[in-house]
Amino acid sequence: MIRFCGLAIALTLVVPQDVDRAAHHEFVIDNFRTESGVVLPKARIVYGTYGHLDAARDNAVLLPSHYMATHHGYEWLIGSDRALDESKLFLVATELFGNGHSSSPSNTPEPFHGPRFPVTTIRDNVDAVHRLLTEDLKITHVRAVIGFSMGAQQAFQWAVSHPDFADRIVATAGTAKTWPHGVVRLEGQIAALTADPAFNGGDYASPPRKGIEAYGMVWLGWLYSQEWWRRELWKTAAPDRTLDQEIENRRRTFFANNDANDLILQARTWQRHDVGATPGFNGDLERALRSMKAPLLYMPSETDLYFPIGDARFEAQFIPRVSLVPIPSLWGHPAGAGGNAADRAFLNEKIGRFLAERQPSAR
Amino acid sequence: MIRFCGLAIALTLVVPQDVDRAAHHEFVIDNFRTESGVVLPKARIVYGTYGHLDAARDNAVLLPSHYMATHHGYEWLIGSDRALDESKLFLVATELFGNGHSSSPSNTPEPFHGPRFPVTTIRDNVDAVHRLLTEDLKITHVRAVIGFSMGAQQAFQWAVSHPDFADRIVATAGTAKTWPHGVVRLEGQIAALTADPAFNGGDYASPPRKGIEAYGMVWLGWLYSQEWWRRELWKTAAPDRTLDQEIENRRRTFFANNDANDLILQARTWQRHDVGATPGFNGDLERALRSMKAPLLYMPSETDLYFPIGDARFEAQFIPRVSLVPIPSLWGHPAGAGGNAADRAFLNEKIGRFLAERQPSAR
Repeated sequence: MIRFCGLAIALTLVVPQDVDRAAHHEFVIDNFRTESGVVLPKARIVYGTYGHLDAARDNAVLLPSHYMATHHGYEWLIGSDRALDESKLFLVATELFGNGHSSSPSNTPEPFHGPRFPVTTIRDNVDAVHRLLTEDLKITHVRAVIGFSMGAQQAFQWAVSHPDFADRIVATAGTAKTWPHGVVRLEGQIAALTADPAFNGGDYASPPRKGIEAYGMVWLGWLYSQEWWRRELWKTAAPDRTLDQEIENRRRTFFANNDANDLILQARTWQRHDVGATPGFNGDLERALRSMKAPLLYMPSETDLYFPIGDARFEAQFIPRVSLVPIPSLWGHPAGAGGNAADRAFLNEKIGRFLAERQPSAR
Repeated sequence: MIRFCGLAIALTLVVPQDVDRAAHHEFVIDNFRTESGVVLPKARIVYGTYGHLDAARDNAVLLPSHYMATHHGYEWLIGSDRALDESKLFLVATELFGNGHSSSPSNTPEPFHGPRFPVTTIRDNVDAVHRLLTEDLKITHVRAVIGFSMGAQQAFQWAVSHPDFADRIVATAGTAKTWPHGVVRLEGQIAALTADPAFNGGDYASPPRKGIEAYGMVWLGWLYSQEWWRRELWKTAAPDRTLDQEIENRRRTFFANNDANDLILQARTWQRHDVGATPGFNGDLERALRSMKAPLLYMPSETDLYFPIGDARFEAQFIPRVSLVPIPSLWGHPAGAGGNAADRAFLNEKIGRFLAERQPSAR
């Protein structure tokens, strides 16, 4: 049983996690060359699968994970009454480098242990998963890539790096580039963690608990919308909990079980993302966005403070076959992962319909 | 010459600070009893004045300061071509407890030095300034109270505690209550500062530099809107500066000259603000808002991440004679202090017109 971490705290409302619905796998790549030029002797991608690959090998859907998530992160979309029916589809849910299961600072031997693990990019993750799909699973085409948050970043990268690989792209609460505010937000969180000298440049003997606590507390301010807080929507899960209790509960638990170097590695991966930096596009984001071929369902949350709707609108204007469908929610970022019943219903309905369309229209 | 600090970094664009335009004063209250019950033997309020009190003592305007600001914080509103003409008005610009000049953790002797300084509330500040005005300056009525941010919190408190004292109330980029998100945001910043063990529970021998740096970096994420960052509006001040340079410049300078206990004290003052907690209202915010008598110009910034426009709209519905005039700006919180030329012009025009109206209409 894989332990849940990170944002999954917000999602434990969604799906009971006491049964592992996925089959659990690993794929190892020897001598994986990262975009930064570092060669990892063994790069491991952990992933889960749901359902069965059909004989034609053409019923796969790829679900790349979000920040610190496991392959369970999309179970709110999976079921016979939901967008992804595992009795018909073969779902491949991959885990990002740095989550503590796939190759990470915390689980890689020297010379790449801890702070010496290379900063893997979203493109590195997409490259590794492309090899997993084509070499290990012999899948050369998928029905869709569907991603939330850093999963959306991967979905956008798939659309640019492998424009013919997927019939559809779905991106919820994530953008094709980490805009400067996202860089600054994450920099503040990293500054909070590393203000704890127990971090010791990443070579800590025991976890820098105070720093991780600060990291989580800072993160918490960004997670939901300000109106979510004014309306006290934490009471959806805990009706009797006061604000002070909610804060102290989060302080104790948010990211508490994650490794500090892993937390920072994935934040660095996030900060650097820009599909415009894909080889061949020479930093031209607009041209990279225009190169996307598959119909793309772009679903920002109306109240997301990480990936604000203005950034999504800006990007969407350049994507040829985009449907921009904002999620009407007060739940901020987690709205993009079905953080509550209404958002789950909305996303399942819109994504299900989008996947079922014969030929989604251009804008 | 008083050193500028805090948010003033964002405002150095606005007014050259090399000439002190204000006359500089102090007012000392013996045995000042704070709302928490602690009695400060000497409570000092530092303030600046502009212009002259007329013989009838009825041309005063009160300008209470914002977070860590000095009495210079409103000079963008002052001038013969601006909302506040010091040749006609007598402007009293007061400094909040905890800014390092008025009584603060950093400048108060034991038994109230450093972390032992009581958490002064916005009401404590209003009470002290009420005594300054009535006892020291013999002013029993002002034309207006005008406040930005924590200054707006004070303006709202004046409207509840002393409803007949001011002809007009102006609140820019600040609310009558710190809603839960504001509490969480500030808690994250305090967690970042105190993750540095050099803070030592407030009894530091030398400044916890790393913690203050983290505090500033976290704060920076909240200061401007996400779109401000996407459009790279820092280049308004520094056209050649890259994002990395902007981040590193802020990391080095933001709050760097402030005392850590002072920073935390004012954050705690901010967190606790709620006009509904005024004695006599028994925690009933709505009743406190309904009790306001003076015409009130309520100017949230459309993109403020501290005091979001939704919270302002919520409060405004209960204020009898409110004019809700959002500031159309991408500058987030500093828009409420005229953080750029367009916002300055907008605020001066709206505030000037509001102050000049003979009888502002009820909604």
